[in-house]
Amino acid sequence: MNNPIGVFDSGVGGLTVVSEIMRQLPGENLVYFGDTARVPYGSKSKNTVLKYSKQIVRFLKTKNVKAIVIACNTASALALDEIAAQLDIPVIGVVKPGAKMAVETTKTGNVGVIGTESTIKSGIYNDYIRELNADITVVSKPCPLFVPLVEEGLLEDRVTDDIVGRYLRVMKEYKVDSLVLGCTHYPLISNAIERFMGKKVNLVNPAFETAKSLKELLTEKEMLNTDKGKPRYEYYVSDGVDKFISFADNVLPYHVTTTQIVDIESY
Amino acid sequence: MNNPIGVFDSGVGGLTVVSEIMRQLPGENLVYFGDTARVPYGSKSKNTVLKYSKQIVRFLKTKNVKAIVIACNTASALALDEIAAQLDIPVIGVVKPGAKMAVETTKTGNVGVIGTESTIKSGIYNDYIRELNADITVVSKPCPLFVPLVEEGLLEDRVTDDIVGRYLRVMKEYKVDSLVLGCTHYPLISNAIERFMGKKVNLVNPAFETAKSLKELLTEKEMLNTDKGKPRYEYYVSDGVDKFISFADNVLPYHVTTTQIVDIESY
Repeated sequence: MNNPIGVFDSGVGGLTVVSEIMRQLPGENLVYFGDTARVPYGSKSKNTVLKYSKQIVRFLKTKNVKAIVIACNTASALALDEIAAQLDIPVIGVVKPGAKMAVETTKTGNVGVIGTESTIKSGIYNDYIRELNADITVVSKPCPLFVPLVEEGLLEDRVTDDIVGRYLRVMKEYKVDSLVLGCTHYPLISNAIERFMGKKVNLVNPAFETAKSLKELLTEKEMLNTDKGKPRYEYYVSDGVDKFISFADNVLPYHVTTTQIVDIESY
Repeated sequence: MNNPIGVFDSGVGGLTVVSEIMRQLPGENLVYFGDTARVPYGSKSKNTVLKYSKQIVRFLKTKNVKAIVIACNTASALALDEIAAQLDIPVIGVVKPGAKMAVETTKTGNVGVIGTESTIKSGIYNDYIRELNADITVVSKPCPLFVPLVEEGLLEDRVTDDIVGRYLRVMKEYKVDSLVLGCTHYPLISNAIERFMGKKVNLVNPAFETAKSLKELLTEKEMLNTDKGKPRYEYYVSDGVDKFISFADNVLPYHVTTTQIVDIESY
């Protein structure tokens, strides 16, 4: 089945998930949409994130996608269930795979979750984790400055270290040993997070586990692409491509040459 | 003429302009729209900011506004000319009044301008300032972390001081004596900016000068409200009202009780 997999995100962060899908599923065609005009989603209400996500899904369907990956934690948290219920193709998000990995790796039973305000407010990581193991204590904390710090390029910087220390102090207090990086930008400052939390704390990057879940799902449903040709990758955005391309150069294994702008409000 | 004045912004920051209008024009009715769903505008392209601004203007026209104030620096920079050309009511932005005040207050002839990436990239402060006095040297610098720091409440904080020092070092190097705070959020960290720049540097808050220009304009065109009743203030947003109300409580002289959500994409 050589139809592409559709991947979407509020902006550029979802490319970290794309990168992992390319690695684990190198034969698949991909269509990516980044909502760079309306980014960020992390401070928006459920209604708005759901509305935007539905518009994007309508756009992706015009590309005949065989499955959809919601690469944005906030959209996964707020919109996945409703979208999945309306579609006849598989839809997976990053939250459930991330929650699963956290549960599998904790020894103390204290799991931390960091993400945007809307992701944390939704309580969805908490729900999934405790569905898998009701004995686990979940400590969650929104970290609204992390995305702007990453976008400003302060990956290794005393200011980032300072802010990391403030946001994550509570994780140390609760002796968390497994910490979910519940926003696609956060793995880019995993060095700073590890410096503060210590090497014994397992940092869960949901991108890896999401690509693994996707592979299992497509295998099980016999939907893998069996064509032997070089895969096709297409990139669409709702606004300016410069930032998109420079971020892509940081996270993807090759240079993105072509992106197209989509009037997403018309979908 | 008791029709309201329409004021709009990318989100909550424009309330600092509203506050100044209330002070200088206490008899006027106001309708405010904050695009809280699609905030921020500061990193978006001209096309997108223009499209969003036009939708908002169409919404404000349904409220029979007699004049429009673009309280957002980015929208003033990227959309004012096209909007003003299409309307038969007066439209004023915050950039021209801010530029004028900077020119009037500088003695060294070195003026600084700070703002969002899109405002600075537009070069419009530079154009206005040098139109008024071609001998002035304009030093401009985008400060993308200031808005997130303000929204996180870090108004008096070592991290904000640290970032202020990095962004504004160039202003000291050029011996700027008049610095335009070219984004509605920036006056909220004027203490930190003054600590770094020193008390001799004049910090220009365009909100004050914009309200003054508005008053002059309405007086000249005989459009002031002559009704003696209590003014009516209406607030509209495109997403979640909680943040809006808490920000309003910080900048307005009274508590906002009612806000309405508008589906702005449909305009």
